[in-house]
Amino acid sequence: MKPIKVGLLGIGTVGSGTFNVLKRNQEEIARRAGRSIEIAMVADLNTERARELTGGTVEIVNDANLVVNNPEIDIVIELIGGYGIAKDLVLKAIANGKHVVTANKALLAVHGTEIFKAAQEKNVMVAFEAAVAGGIPIIKALREGLTANRIQWIAGIINGTTNFILSEMRDKGLDFDTVLKEAQRLGYAEADPTFDIEGVDAAHKATIMASIAFGIPVQFNKAHVEGITKLEAIDIKYAEQLGYRIKLLGIARRTPMGVELRVHPTLIPAKRLIANVEGAMNAVVVQGDAVGPTLYYGKGAGSEPTASAVIADLVDIARLATADPENRVPHLAFQPDAMSDLPILPIEEVTTSYYLRLNVADRPGVLADITRILADAGISIDAMLQKEPAEGETRADIILLTHQTQEKNILAATARIEALQTVAPGITRLRLEELS
Amino acid sequence: MKPIKVGLLGIGTVGSGTFNVLKRNQEEIARRAGRSIEIAMVADLNTERARELTGGTVEIVNDANLVVNNPEIDIVIELIGGYGIAKDLVLKAIANGKHVVTANKALLAVHGTEIFKAAQEKNVMVAFEAAVAGGIPIIKALREGLTANRIQWIAGIINGTTNFILSEMRDKGLDFDTVLKEAQRLGYAEADPTFDIEGVDAAHKATIMASIAFGIPVQFNKAHVEGITKLEAIDIKYAEQLGYRIKLLGIARRTPMGVELRVHPTLIPAKRLIANVEGAMNAVVVQGDAVGPTLYYGKGAGSEPTASAVIADLVDIARLATADPENRVPHLAFQPDAMSDLPILPIEEVTTSYYLRLNVADRPGVLADITRILADAGISIDAMLQKEPAEGETRADIILLTHQTQEKNILAATARIEALQTVAPGITRLRLEELS
Repeated sequence: MKPIKVGLLGIGTVGSGTFNVLKRNQEEIARRAGRSIEIAMVADLNTERARELTGGTVEIVNDANLVVNNPEIDIVIELIGGYGIAKDLVLKAIANGKHVVTANKALLAVHGTEIFKAAQEKNVMVAFEAAVAGGIPIIKALREGLTANRIQWIAGIINGTTNFILSEMRDKGLDFDTVLKEAQRLGYAEADPTFDIEGVDAAHKATIMASIAFGIPVQFNKAHVEGITKLEAIDIKYAEQLGYRIKLLGIARRTPMGVELRVHPTLIPAKRLIANVEGAMNAVVVQGDAVGPTLYYGKGAGSEPTASAVIADLVDIARLATADPENRVPHLAFQPDAMSDLPILPIEEVTTSYYLRLNVADRPGVLADITRILADAGISIDAMLQKEPAEGETRADIILLTHQTQEKNILAATARIEALQTVAPGITRLRLEELS
Repeated sequence: MKPIKVGLLGIGTVGSGTFNVLKRNQEEIARRAGRSIEIAMVADLNTERARELTGGTVEIVNDANLVVNNPEIDIVIELIGGYGIAKDLVLKAIANGKHVVTANKALLAVHGTEIFKAAQEKNVMVAFEAAVAGGIPIIKALREGLTANRIQWIAGIINGTTNFILSEMRDKGLDFDTVLKEAQRLGYAEADPTFDIEGVDAAHKATIMASIAFGIPVQFNKAHVEGITKLEAIDIKYAEQLGYRIKLLGIARRTPMGVELRVHPTLIPAKRLIANVEGAMNAVVVQGDAVGPTLYYGKGAGSEPTASAVIADLVDIARLATADPENRVPHLAFQPDAMSDLPILPIEEVTTSYYLRLNVADRPGVLADITRILADAGISIDAMLQKEPAEGETRADIILLTHQTQEKNILAATARIEALQTVAPGITRLRLEELS
């Protein structure tokens, strides 16, 4: 069969990984795909570096339009990132009848609906395994491996930077700022780490997974997004004492009222497998009604792990390109005319358990007041940790773990608790998921 | 699009799960697949129970030939098991131009080459996600998700019964026989548990995974198979003290000389994620050259988890049926004309680390004699645990962990050590893998 001709937009970290893996494993890949897959053209503003990286074997251009308009190119790989020029180029490639492979989670989480619609009209595929959890084939598992299931929820460690920081904070008892600096020094965090540490990157990925799991349009603007910048070392320690770890999770859950879509630091039982995912690794738990819980683990970023996903998409497209378009795997797992309009719930409507840390006066009746307010709000207490006041102190920490309740209930109850004169202002509130 | 008509051979545990999940989730599945998938005919010797399970909505026959010969049936699901009648029926279905879905690992591990060849000649697909690790989409990950990679090794907990027994032995400090009886009482082990506890079931699955990972024909008869029946509680305890857990692993590793294909109890570092897979759960680690390590975890058996895999195969076939046959995913991941003839290594040629437990006389020079023999054989010692003799005893246990060596070297060295008068006969020898 004739080789598949690929055009590459952007030859940075993932682009060079894709070029190198395709070259190194070209025989093995061709033995699987039944044909060879060749990068025929590369567009990058830095043409000199692109020429160095490719060793002069490939046509290099600095205008990406030359790639998306080239009739010789079958598939365009978009690795530019962001919403701007990347979007234009993806839409142009689609308009020109080319299949697209992209690792651009931001683009799909925000403009996915428009892009997938354009692709459907032109009968081309847009593949994006690399957009979520790097080399872990989680999109494939959700879209194809678990098709039998009504998916109930997904919970994932889908940002390596923040998981590295949380692992280090726990391991070494250090605070966030110290560890962030170390992470930047080691290359686990970028110079501007905002998208990672504020949870935006994880929310892009959770948005995409929620769409695929439940058949809803991508709606990044409805996601609840909290990062780890305000997380204190003391809470990691108290959580540990109660048998929990704190992870930044991307969570998508189907309820009868709507879909929960949220990213925030979360206490999870230390005995769960996902609680033991350390360092920059990623892992996603998917709960299906037939299969039960399944977990997928691996490197969520990096040159060759992400390239692994990009190339898997190339082979998939090579295979499915000859199938009837309506028999291909739908972009968002469900047929475009069979999407659901289940709304995304505002965070106040979300149901979860809570970890509360209160600093209280060490005197009789304080705990009774607090538990009375929670009881009045219908919130049961699952566990409590009461610390002795430090030497010479008259105040102490109380940690409460609640059973499940709606966020609006806990907000109302904690406001009432904060109004008690015996309780210091600023209750620390973290969400807790049993993941069972 | 017109519905896919499915014929089911055998409506036992997995068959009834398949029927129930297809019925319960029919709308969700159709929204994904773009068409409905219907079980139109069921063959089972117990027609009465079959009628009960299906609620009288489906044609029930007691002769499976009526299903495989029915021109209305598009896909046949074989859930009879074993090598005999199941093989005949699968081949007949293929000869009649029907696609086949099977959970029969024994059949594929032994007769896969013949079956896949027949399927290829008739341009039909034989799908078998359910044959390995139940509901975990590991076949899909290996065949499609990781196509970019040169796969280096696979190590899996792929038998739930033995993992349950090992978890209980470690947790409660009990011996094998006691836990086996408990497992049988709880339904985790069958009345005749031989295939599970002797490692045969795991070896069937490892055989299939090795073929897909390395593009070699299925060769069950070349697999090295050891179960857990001889494992002693004391070794689980000593392993724990050295920072290791003992798991029954199915291992497939590519070396320049050939493929290692082996199932045996294995020490693995307790800190590895897979070491923390407890109870009847399954997990598989795959090491690819681009992606690094990835892990897949879930329920490896049971009615609905296995049904989840069977139905995913049905949807896959429905999708790929319209693609050019040469563009479909090859049965063993590699194109039939691009398979490798890399041999499977005899166990003596396998390279691994070892755990040795020796019972020795507590007198000077014994350890020097032992370590000298190992050094002469070129075997380095990685760790040692020396137990004090019990009160009134003159003998003690020594545990040695070695660096990697070939099995034949350790066999020769332990034979020499056993010939020492100070060492009791019967050195306990277990293999150890760092999985890094």
